[in-house]
Amino acid sequence: MRPGPSPSDTKEPVMSEQDREREEFLRVARRAREAAAGLAPLPRAAKDAALHRIADALVAAAPEIVKANEVDVARARENGTSEYMIDRLSLTEPRIAAIADAVRAVAALPDPVGEGVRGTVLPNGLELRQVRVPLGVVGIIYEGRPNVTVDAAALCLKSGNVAMLRGSSSAHDSNTVLVRVMQQALQDGEVPADAVQLVPGTSRESVKHLMRARGLVDVLIPRGGASLINSVVEESTVPVIETGVGNCAVYVDAAADVDMALKILLNAKTQRPSVCNAAETVLVHADIADAFVPRALDALRAAGVTVHGDDRIRSHGADVVAATEEDWAAEYLSLDIAARVVDSLDDAVAHIREYGSGHTEAIVTDSQAAAKRFVALVDSAAVMVNASTRFTDGEEFGFGAEIGISTQKLHARGPMGLPELTSTKYVVVGEGHVRG
Amino acid sequence: MRPGPSPSDTKEPVMSEQDREREEFLRVARRAREAAAGLAPLPRAAKDAALHRIADALVAAAPEIVKANEVDVARARENGTSEYMIDRLSLTEPRIAAIADAVRAVAALPDPVGEGVRGTVLPNGLELRQVRVPLGVVGIIYEGRPNVTVDAAALCLKSGNVAMLRGSSSAHDSNTVLVRVMQQALQDGEVPADAVQLVPGTSRESVKHLMRARGLVDVLIPRGGASLINSVVEESTVPVIETGVGNCAVYVDAAADVDMALKILLNAKTQRPSVCNAAETVLVHADIADAFVPRALDALRAAGVTVHGDDRIRSHGADVVAATEEDWAAEYLSLDIAARVVDSLDDAVAHIREYGSGHTEAIVTDSQAAAKRFVALVDSAAVMVNASTRFTDGEEFGFGAEIGISTQKLHARGPMGLPELTSTKYVVVGEGHVRG
Repeated sequence: MRPGPSPSDTKEPVMSEQDREREEFLRVARRAREAAAGLAPLPRAAKDAALHRIADALVAAAPEIVKANEVDVARARENGTSEYMIDRLSLTEPRIAAIADAVRAVAALPDPVGEGVRGTVLPNGLELRQVRVPLGVVGIIYEGRPNVTVDAAALCLKSGNVAMLRGSSSAHDSNTVLVRVMQQALQDGEVPADAVQLVPGTSRESVKHLMRARGLVDVLIPRGGASLINSVVEESTVPVIETGVGNCAVYVDAAADVDMALKILLNAKTQRPSVCNAAETVLVHADIADAFVPRALDALRAAGVTVHGDDRIRSHGADVVAATEEDWAAEYLSLDIAARVVDSLDDAVAHIREYGSGHTEAIVTDSQAAAKRFVALVDSAAVMVNASTRFTDGEEFGFGAEIGISTQKLHARGPMGLPELTSTKYVVVGEGHVRG
Repeated sequence: MRPGPSPSDTKEPVMSEQDREREEFLRVARRAREAAAGLAPLPRAAKDAALHRIADALVAAAPEIVKANEVDVARARENGTSEYMIDRLSLTEPRIAAIADAVRAVAALPDPVGEGVRGTVLPNGLELRQVRVPLGVVGIIYEGRPNVTVDAAALCLKSGNVAMLRGSSSAHDSNTVLVRVMQQALQDGEVPADAVQLVPGTSRESVKHLMRARGLVDVLIPRGGASLINSVVEESTVPVIETGVGNCAVYVDAAADVDMALKILLNAKTQRPSVCNAAETVLVHADIADAFVPRALDALRAAGVTVHGDDRIRSHGADVVAATEEDWAAEYLSLDIAARVVDSLDDAVAHIREYGSGHTEAIVTDSQAAAKRFVALVDSAAVMVNASTRFTDGEEFGFGAEIGISTQKLHARGPMGLPELTSTKYVVVGEGHVRG
C-alpha cells in the first residue's frame, strides 16, 4: 500500500495554515498506519490489558476530564446551545465511571480477530482457511457526545483497529483530554500508544483530509445526521459505511391486532423519539383504518405527538396536519409522525421503497402470509414482525456493543458489532503446490 | 430510497447529446431498479430456469453473435489491435457453447439468497435471524472479453441481483447482441427481462453516469487495470469493490527448500503471466541468496523472463536489469519480474507493505515459525505458504465461479463468489414486543 505524498513533496518555503494542517494530518495518519501494523497481530490478552488500563486511567483522570469538559460546556452555553444538547455534551465523574465500565465490558467481549470464517482442505490437498483480520485504520466522524470518543476507541482497539477520531468541534477540549489519557494509558503496554488518534484541527478542512486519506485510512464511519453522512459519501475516496439515518415505518396490516398495533406504534414513536430506530411514519391498511386510526390519534395526541396525515387520516381527526411530500421522507427525531392510509400491503411496501431510508420497518399482523410477504419485499436492514422498530440495536441484538447502525448494503448492514469491524484474509498452506 | 432527478426536471426544450445520454441512462437504471425489486424475492427454481433459458438462447443465437463479433474484430484490426487482444475479443461457436456451459454451471451452484447467517432467540423471546439478500443493482465495468458480459450477468442473476453491464467499447457490437439475446430469453419467465442491462452509450461520459447513480445502483465492481479502478474509486459515489490489481510477491525464506522455491517461483511467474495472481516480485533472504539466486536466474532466463534486480541480485547475473523504484511497484503482467535480496523476513514484510497491492503473497519455508510470522504480518487478501500465488482464484478455492478478486478490505476480500454478491437483512419476529 503506497501512502499519499510525503511532506517533502511540498516545495514552497512558507506553508499556509491549510498546508500546515494537512501536514499535521498526514503525520498523524502515518503514525496511525504504523500503529495498525503493530496492533493487528496482537493476541486478545494484550488488547484486553490495554482496555483495562484505559478504563482505570479514565477514572483516575476524571477531575481533569470534567475540567476540560466545563470549557466545552461554557462555550456551548455562550453559543446558545439547547439544554438537551448541553446535557449530551456534559461529562460528570459518575458519567466517566460509566464510560470506563463500558470499556471494561468491551474487554469482556470475545475477540473477533483470528476467528475462522471458512476452513476446508481442497481436492488438491491445499489447506484453505478464511480468518478475520482487523480492517486497519478506522476513521470515525461523529457529533456531540464525547463518550463516543472512548466507546469508538475501545471497540476499534478490541477488534485490532487503530481509531482516527474526528469528533464535534463543540467537544474538542473534552476529546483532546480523553484521547491524551487513553494514549498515556497505552504507554508501556504492547498496544502502540498511536493506536488511538484524534484528527488534528477542528476546521471543516480537517474532515476533508480524513476523507481523502485513501491508502492511509481503510474505512470511514460517519455517525450523525443525513447532511454529514451525505457530504462524506459524496466527497470521500476512503470507503464509507453509512450509518444511522432512520426514516422507519410501522405498517398496520388489515389482519393486525389493534391493541398490539397501538402498543407497538406508541413505543416505536415515543419511547425515545430522538434516535434513528424511532418510527417516523405509520402506514395503515384501509380495511383496519376505522378501527385503528381514531384510537391511534387519541393515543398519539395524549403522548404529545403531532400527526402529519393524508386526507384519509385527517378525516379521523381535526388536529391532524396535512402531510406534504417532505413529511413522507422526514426523519423527524421529534414527537412528530407521518401517517397514511394504504389500500394494500404492496402499497405500503411501495411507499417504503419510495421514501424509506432502509433502516427498520415493522409490520403488525396476525397473518402469516402477510408477514412473509412484507419480510420478503421490504428491503431494509431490519424488518420487524409484531415488534417495535426500537429493537434494531447492537445491545438488543446481543452483540454486546455497537459502533453504529449501517443502512448500506456493502460490508455490514444493521447494527455493527465487533465482527463488522473486521475484514478477512485467506491463508493457504501447501507443500510446494503449483498450478498445472 | 429516493432516486435521482426525474426526466421532467430538465427544463430546456432542446436537449444536448450529453443530456440525452444521461436521460437514457436514467431510464435504463430505473428499469434495473424496478427489476431488482421483482427479482430479489424469487426462489432458486425461477432463477435456475432463467439461466438455462439464457444458455439455450445463446447457443441458438450463436451465428448472430459471431456475426456481431466479427464487426468488433474487424474494427479492432483496423485500429491496429494486437493479435493477443483480438484473440481475447473473438467469439466462435465453440466459445459460445463454452459460455453457455458456464451459465449452466452457475445454475447448478447453491443459491446464496435466503441462507441464514445468524439465528437466535433473544432473552426477551424475540426471534432474530440474519439472512442473505441480494445487493440489488450491481454495476460492472470491464474491459475486453465479451464472455464477461454473460458470466457477470449469470452470477448476478443467480444471486438475485440485476446486472448493469458496461463493457469495453471495443466489444460493443458483441455485447449488444449478447444482452439482447439474454433479455429475450427472460421474456415469459418469472425473472424480469430488465434484470440484465447494458449501460447505454460507449463514451467515457456513460461510465460517469454509472459512477454517480447512487440510490439507483447499489455497488460498482470495476474489473480491469489499475487506471480504470483508480478513476472509478476517485469519482464514484456508488460504493465500489476494487478488484484485480495484483503486484504479488514470492518470498524465499532462509529456511526454504530451494527446489520447492524454484518450482513455485517459476509457476507463479510464468504459468500465466497476464493475470493478477501472477508473481511480479521475488524477495530472497540473504542467507539463501547464494544457493537460490543463480539457479533462479538460470531458470527464469530459460523461461524468457527478464529480471529487474537490486545490486545483490545483479551480482549473480550480468543480464539482470537494474531495478528502479517503479519496478518494485509494477504490475508487469508480462515475462518480467522484480527481484531483491532482503536481510530478514521482517524486511520482506516491510517491502510488501510498501509496494504490494494487497492481493497475494507467498512464503516458501520449512520453518513453522517463519510461516506463522509471515502469515500474521502480511496484510494481503491471500497469503500462501509453500504454494504458488496462482491459486488465489474462485475456481481453485472451490467457489464454483468468481465475479472478481477483491483487493479491498470492505465487504469482500479475495476471490468473490456468489455469497460475496449478497448483503444481509435482519428479520425479527415478536409477539407484540416493545422496548421498556
